Formats: sequence, structure tokens, C-alpha cells
Amino acid sequence: MKIAVFGTGSVGQTISAKLVSMGYEVMIGTRDVNEARSRTAADMYGNPGFATWIISNNKVKLGTFADAASFGDLLVNATSGGSSVEAIKSAKTGDLKGKILIDIANPLDFSKGMPPCLIPSLSNTFSLGEELQKEFPEAKVVKTLNTMWCGLMVNPVMIGNGDHVNYLCGNDSGAKNTVKDLLKKFGWKEENLLDLGDITNSRGTEAVLPIWLRVWGATGTGAFNFRIVR
Amino acid sequence: MKIAVFGTGSVGQTISAKLVSMGYEVMIGTRDVNEARSRTAADMYGNPGFATWIISNNKVKLGTFADAASFGDLLVNATSGGSSVEAIKSAKTGDLKGKILIDIANPLDFSKGMPPCLIPSLSNTFSLGEELQKEFPEAKVVKTLNTMWCGLMVNPVMIGNGDHVNYLCGNDSGAKNTVKDLLKKFGWKEENLLDLGDITNSRGTEAVLPIWLRVWGATGTGAFNFRIVR
Repeated sequence: MKIAVFGTGSVGQTISAKLVSMGYEVMIGTRDVNEARSRTAADMYGNPGFATWIISNNKVKLGTFADAASFGDLLVNATSGGSSVEAIKSAKTGDLKGKILIDIANPLDFSKGMPPCLIPSLSNTFSLGEELQKEFPEAKVVKTLNTMWCGLMVNPVMIGNGDHVNYLCGNDSGAKNTVKDLLKKFGWKEENLLDLGDITNSRGTEAVLPIWLRVWGATGTGAFNFRIVR
Repeated sequence: MKIAVFGTGSVGQTISAKLVSMGYEVMIGTRDVNEARSRTAADMYGNPGFATWIISNNKVKLGTFADAASFGDLLVNATSGGSSVEAIKSAKTGDLKGKILIDIANPLDFSKGMPPCLIPSLSNTFSLGEELQKEFPEAKVVKTLNTMWCGLMVNPVMIGNGDHVNYLCGNDSGAKNTVKDLLKKFGWKEENLLDLGDITNSRGTEAVLPIWLRVWGATGTGAFNFRIVR
């Protein structure tokens, strides 16, 4: 299976590297390929620039968002939430049709200081997950993995024997089952995958960010997640 | 110590009964005492009406919000978030001065269907905790306990050996320490009390509700909480 990952930030890099290590063909999509290849400056978290990363991860193909949408049988949105719609709109007509779009992005708004808030128009009574499903009805959007640091997304056993929660939601049960199978290959246990229902539940999982960011601030580590205790 | 609890719903009842069982003098405050004493209908969760509850919990004093504010050395806000300011404004001048106000309420908006969203003006870039501190600067607001079902607030060992998280935030360190001491008497362990910092962090803890409500919906039980796994 060919997988396209939209977004060249640390989340897109982490997911792409993991998928390649599992034997998938992966193309990472970006707005401007030449700009991405020349991005040597470290990101805001101190990770090396994309230009450095793509050299050491040379099995990952690099293309435009449109190239990636054509390439992938399965699509992953790892762009910043505020520009996700614009990025995926680059896809040529028909290239999203029937494809699963795993949305792991969050609609963060950094314009009002730190920690970021959520983009008002994409929170509380709406969400990024819903917006993507509305804008791209031919795709099957499954929201998952957005409630944690990217290192844990692809390696959940790093902490607590992997026993912490990962939510899924989306309107298509078959698509959610396919995504669950992929998540299990990442190391997620069935009992820690909680299907919340349809895509409107993105309002809940994206609302994890305001508390996630503050726990991160108070504890000094992003390598944590929440377990549901009953 | 005398404690006033604002609000006669299931949260106010649960907190009041626990405090009385611990030996505190407790007054529960309401808008209209006669109306509360005549409320026999069960609430939306099937709990008996307040009129029934107050008869079997006759050590709990009942008064107006103003009576309760005068009575309590320590105050607890368990009203519905959208009417908390109005309720506490009933306090006579000086009756909040220097007192700790523990805010366990959430600014839920039931007007847009279920599950409720957050009141837009009290979420994302603001919060109920902040609004209370702003409206009542003479009180020391400590936000805590609002991220779980009330049965767990006062009996955390009911699940998972009590190992799940309870957040605190507020601008006054001394007030937070006093509240921590009370929480420990409820059964909370020091290591599970996470101080997030000042009262602006209410934006994070109140944002737990959108995911809490959906986990409740997906699992069918409110007797759960989140543990931070590191």
C-alpha cells in the first residue's frame, strides 16, 4: 500500500519514517518542494530542518500536495490545522475519491500567545475533523492520534507498557477498521483504541489540546498520555 | 471550619454530604429556599429531588446564596457555570473578602444539543475560573475537581486505587495548599494532585469536558477518570 503524508513538520516526519520502516511506500507532500528541500533551520522544538531530515530519510519520496494525493492509496493529514483545507484542496479532481484520510492535525491558534488556543471557528461547536469531511466528502476522514506527542503515536509502548488511550472517530466503520489495523502495527493494543463514534467527536479529541499543552507545561515532558481509569 | 456550598444539584449535594460526614458545618446556598424545599421531581440523571435529599441530610443547613456566603469560612461553587456569577453576586459586601472560593463548576451550554458544548464566551481564550476571579477579586479562586463525576471527587479510591489525576489552578499558593489539604482528606494522594499554575489554566481543565462527555457516551459509565502515564 502506498501512503501519502501531507505536511513536512515533525509529525509528518515521524509518521513517514515509521511507515517506511514498516515497508510502505511513502510520499510526503508539501506546498513547495524546492522550499522544503532548502529548509535547513531547526524548527521551534529544535528538530533539524526538513532539508537535513529528507537526506537521511531518502526512502521517503517528496512531492507537492497534489503529487502526494495522486500517489497515496491512503492519506494522512499532518499539516498545521489552520492550513489543512488549503493543502488538501491542491489534490486533483478524483484523487481523494474513496480514499481514507487519517487526520492527526489540530486547529491550533498561536496568534494569541502561549500556550496556543484552538482556532475559534474550528472548535467547541465544530472541529477540523468535521471541516475536512465537509470539504472533502469523497474522502473517508478518520480522526485519530491527535491527542499526543508524535513520538508516542508510532511507539505507544515507550510509556506505561502502551496502556494509554488513543481515540478514533469517523463516519465510515470500514475506514475505522482499516485505520485500527494500521494503529495495531504501530503497537497500539485493541483495548486502548476507543472508537467515539462519528466525526463530530473530533470536537472532543481536539479539545484535549488545551489540557495536554498545560500538562506538558507543568510536567516539562511531552512524552505522556492519558489512560482511562475505570 | 464552616463551609458554604453554592448549588443544590447532584454535585452540591455530594460535596455537602461528604463535608458533613467529615465533621464540617455546612450550609448549602440556593437562589430560593422555598423553591428548593419543594423540589420533589428527580433531576435529569434520575437522582431524587432536592426536597427529598435535604430531609435525609438534615445536618446540612439550607440558606440563600447570600446566607451561605456569610456563613462559610471557605466557599465552594457547584452551581451551573452559566449562572455562577449571578449566584455569587448575591453575597453581601465583604462576605467574600479573603475567602477561598473552590470552583468545581463547568460552563456547559445545553442549548445546542447533546453532548453540551462550552459557553463560547467562557471557553478557549477565557474560562469560568478566570471570570470568577475577575468578578470577585477579593476572593481567592481555586479551580479543581471539575474534570470528573462528583462521586469520584469525594471518593477517588473508588477506581484504580485512587491513581488518577485531579488538577488545581489558582493565583494564590496558600489557597491552593489549603485546598490540597482538604482534597487529601477526601482521599486524594499528593502525587495525583497536579498544580497547573495560575487561574488561566482553567481554560485547560474546563476543556476536559468535551472529551469527558464523549468518553462517558462511548463507555456508558461516568465513574472514570484520566491518569497521566509517563
